Amino acid sequence: MKVQGKPTRTIWLAADAKDGPGDNWGDIEVIDQRKLPHAFVTVRLSSLDDCAVAIKEMWIRGAPLIGATAAYGIALAMRKDPSDASLAKAYDILLATRPTAINLRWALDDLRNTLKQVPAERRVAAAYRRAAEICDEDVAICSSIGDHGLAIIKDIAAKKKPGETTHILTHCNAGWLACVDWGTALAPIYKAFDAGLKIHVWVDETRPRNQGASLTAWELNQHGVPHTVIVDNVGGHLMQQGQVDLCIVGTDRVTTNGDVCNKIGTYLKALAAKDNNVPFYVALPSPTIDWTMKSGMDIPIEERDGTEVTVMTGRTKDGQVIDVTITPEGSPAANFGFDVTPARLVSGLVTERGVCAASEEGLKQLFPSH
Amino acid sequence: MKVQGKPTRTIWLAADAKDGPGDNWGDIEVIDQRKLPHAFVTVRLSSLDDCAVAIKEMWIRGAPLIGATAAYGIALAMRKDPSDASLAKAYDILLATRPTAINLRWALDDLRNTLKQVPAERRVAAAYRRAAEICDEDVAICSSIGDHGLAIIKDIAAKKKPGETTHILTHCNAGWLACVDWGTALAPIYKAFDAGLKIHVWVDETRPRNQGASLTAWELNQHGVPHTVIVDNVGGHLMQQGQVDLCIVGTDRVTTNGDVCNKIGTYLKALAAKDNNVPFYVALPSPTIDWTMKSGMDIPIEERDGTEVTVMTGRTKDGQVIDVTITPEGSPAANFGFDVTPARLVSGLVTERGVCAASEEGLKQLFPSH
Repeated sequence: MKVQGKPTRTIWLAADAKDGPGDNWGDIEVIDQRKLPHAFVTVRLSSLDDCAVAIKEMWIRGAPLIGATAAYGIALAMRKDPSDASLAKAYDILLATRPTAINLRWALDDLRNTLKQVPAERRVAAAYRRAAEICDEDVAICSSIGDHGLAIIKDIAAKKKPGETTHILTHCNAGWLACVDWGTALAPIYKAFDAGLKIHVWVDETRPRNQGASLTAWELNQHGVPHTVIVDNVGGHLMQQGQVDLCIVGTDRVTTNGDVCNKIGTYLKALAAKDNNVPFYVALPSPTIDWTMKSGMDIPIEERDGTEVTVMTGRTKDGQVIDVTITPEGSPAANFGFDVTPARLVSGLVTERGVCAASEEGLKQLFPSH
Repeated sequence: MKVQGKPTRTIWLAADAKDGPGDNWGDIEVIDQRKLPHAFVTVRLSSLDDCAVAIKEMWIRGAPLIGATAAYGIALAMRKDPSDASLAKAYDILLATRPTAINLRWALDDLRNTLKQVPAERRVAAAYRRAAEICDEDVAICSSIGDHGLAIIKDIAAKKKPGETTHILTHCNAGWLACVDWGTALAPIYKAFDAGLKIHVWVDETRPRNQGASLTAWELNQHGVPHTVIVDNVGGHLMQQGQVDLCIVGTDRVTTNGDVCNKIGTYLKALAAKDNNVPFYVALPSPTIDWTMKSGMDIPIEERDGTEVTVMTGRTKDGQVIDVTITPEGSPAANFGFDVTPARLVSGLVTERGVCAASEEGLKQLFPSH
């Protein structure tokens, strides 16, 4: 989507590689997302190690973007040394960066399988080509999610009075910054905005890491989509007051019964949506479906460091970005990363193949091979 | 409750007045709550104007404490000039500090009516006496709320296995810092802790002003009550996991049908409590009941400045307390102060007269004269 008016992806070949790879296979560039929303900084990744650091230290985040970056990490490793040993080492180094990210392993397996069938002297080209394909495939999936979600927004907008704004609430960041482009939950929003629909997005701050107030607000702002940041406490009140027409969120894992694991606090918004008859949709690429797990209640919930709760990052009046502690000394904090929204609270799942009910039956209609 | 091990109220006569008022009527001291939780600072209020500034600029906050401070503001005005004109002027100045605080007008009316019946030369003594009574009455009301709430906690604790901790979730600050002592929602918690019950409190951060993470955590920590700060998104997950035995919150206004207006986000916790069969109680002194309003949905919800959302206050590593902006430039924020929890989600109202159903019938059983 747009940054400073210019269409941008989250990962791309450096400009000096734009004439196409010859012997001069390009470096990669990504947005240093740690600096958002306070500064837009891009960084060059010139080696396997650069990619590993970028993933591990969360310069980039979001399952699809982690996968894409890992794929290019393999390509950069092949540029230096296309041997089997180099491939195996690159695979291990990258896999260790974020052990729980499902797309990371998927992308690495894909690259390794592709390259094993190719002689060493052609591996660089094959790796760059496959990494580029992985990026393009992700863009296509997200774009398709956007199209299916757009149909939902259009239906809701059609029931409003002429000229009325359609208000959409989202939680956390399921935007293009987490993918290569478009995003998942935000893809329908960008499609609706680009199609000229009159929309406005309520952006949940999403404590403790504030991905809404920082990343979602930043990307909507850059693309020009009208939005308002609210604290996570507000959504219920807005729904009671008829100020939310639709909720769309992303997800980290959907189980076969349609339960949705997503950023902590999603469940509370789903309860409020149900209590106020507001449609509550979840957008996801199909790899997010965990066909091995029957119920979301079986998903182990990550507990993270309490300092994410007690320490906030922001910029001072003179533009410095610093950390401040907001709790009393001596008060401990607990930090649960995710919660599970039961399928009964979900209006539908928006996938690249269409929209289905949040149930085993619904999922199997779209994905019959599982 | 205790601060640094010492029993403390939120407002008291300065130590040099402790020998009892003669001609030397005392100054007042309060905690400068703007400095919490980063520093415990007390300030001396020596005049009507000092009290007006302390209320207006929120050195002190909480309806009962605002009322008590206003009462002493009248006393300090009488010390300087006990005339009718001085009384009328003090009344007007104090009333203008926080026009919507119901206890403020109540305390001022009380003082004015009391003093009008007293000749000017005896007004100083009468004003100090009445202000002290107002403080003691508030302490008695909160203590009684605490006793009735304690019975609820004891019932719940009795159903747990021997040695198991009873987990209580609270939102915002309805503690002694908002009153003179004990608090409302926290009074039962202090009573349970002082009685030796094994309890633990989940403290909702309560964005955007963070009264939970700052004030509630601070006062529980000072009194020694085990607690953990969580972001507002977490409560639903904890209830799903059986880690909350009871919710207790305060309220700004209860309507005759039992609807509860309280800090924004309360409604979401009440929904989660209902969805998980967790008891959800609301503690209140009876003046909080608005007998003129039939439904909480008629209560106008205050919209506050968006900078409370976009700017956070904390302390740096070297101990400075500073403000930082956490949202992108160009992203607006909306800031709703309160929401309404429908009576159907409330297990009971805990008042100084006992516990009743959140309904007109329930309220009238405890308060038949209304």
